[in-house]
Amino acid sequence: MITTSDDKQAILDLMARWRTALEAKDVAKMMEDYLPDALLFDACPPYKAKGANSIAKVWEKCLPYFPEKFSSEHRDLQVHIGGNVAFVHGIHHFLPTPADHPCGQTWMRITIGLKRVEGIWKVAHEHVSIPFNPMNLQAWYITDPDSLDMPDYSAEACEGGSQL
Amino acid sequence: MITTSDDKQAILDLMARWRTALEAKDVAKMMEDYLPDALLFDACPPYKAKGANSIAKVWEKCLPYFPEKFSSEHRDLQVHIGGNVAFVHGIHHFLPTPADHPCGQTWMRITIGLKRVEGIWKVAHEHVSIPFNPMNLQAWYITDPDSLDMPDYSAEACEGGSQL
Repeated sequence: MITTSDDKQAILDLMARWRTALEAKDVAKMMEDYLPDALLFDACPPYKAKGANSIAKVWEKCLPYFPEKFSSEHRDLQVHIGGNVAFVHGIHHFLPTPADHPCGQTWMRITIGLKRVEGIWKVAHEHVSIPFNPMNLQAWYITDPDSLDMPDYSAEACEGGSQL
Repeated sequence: MITTSDDKQAILDLMARWRTALEAKDVAKMMEDYLPDALLFDACPPYKAKGANSIAKVWEKCLPYFPEKFSSEHRDLQVHIGGNVAFVHGIHHFLPTPADHPCGQTWMRITIGLKRVEGIWKVAHEHVSIPFNPMNLQAWYITDPDSLDMPDYSAEACEGGSQL
């Protein structure tokens, strides 16, 4: 099967549908474009969720902690498409109301692996994360994606540190 | 171009070469199978490194903190191949000497995006991470990949917590 710019648009449309379903806290709709055996590496534990049913449960547990109103935004998306396999990378964040809600404090890196099954693109894999600071083992929020902020990795800072 | 089981083996061989180069702390060799514009989302900041040269710098900075002797191991690898695009997911860890060195305390989730350029598979994207505990914003080590350990997300634990 030939890859066209339509494939890219189909994948971007899939992600737009996911954002809309997420904003509506509609887990069933969020999962419509996932393969039954999709594997999620999420930003929070458990470190993996295997199968669309398990991924749905992750969201069902997580969404009650979200505010009533928020929007979902992707940025820096790049789509790489082969015959029936594709992957996308970029960043995602929540824009909550009120803006200081904990869910809105960081961007997250996302990588999505897709497969075209009977002509339709489906999510086979998703990896969502933020880095951690090896000097103190704290999550490292991405507050400004245009900055490549780093902890102080100098020799002095390392002494007695818990760096990897 | 047709995908064969040879493609899977070629990608697994690429990863084996990377492990061998890593164990030798040979950054130039580690980078041999990367595209010039590859994008890394690493486990530690900066949150992204764009370009093989930047990724090499990440390793050059990081490797001095590794012990002289360690081995590198992948597990649970699954390879998904389209025409000229593939992605792999699995987990990776270091086995340092001595075993209690900080670099050996967690498995990491890995997702690798590859492209076949002039018949040769090359790494276009890599995402490496561990989760974080949203209750205290600490990195969440994956000490036993056969367990799906989770923090206490109960309502009591959440009160006053910093959960997302």
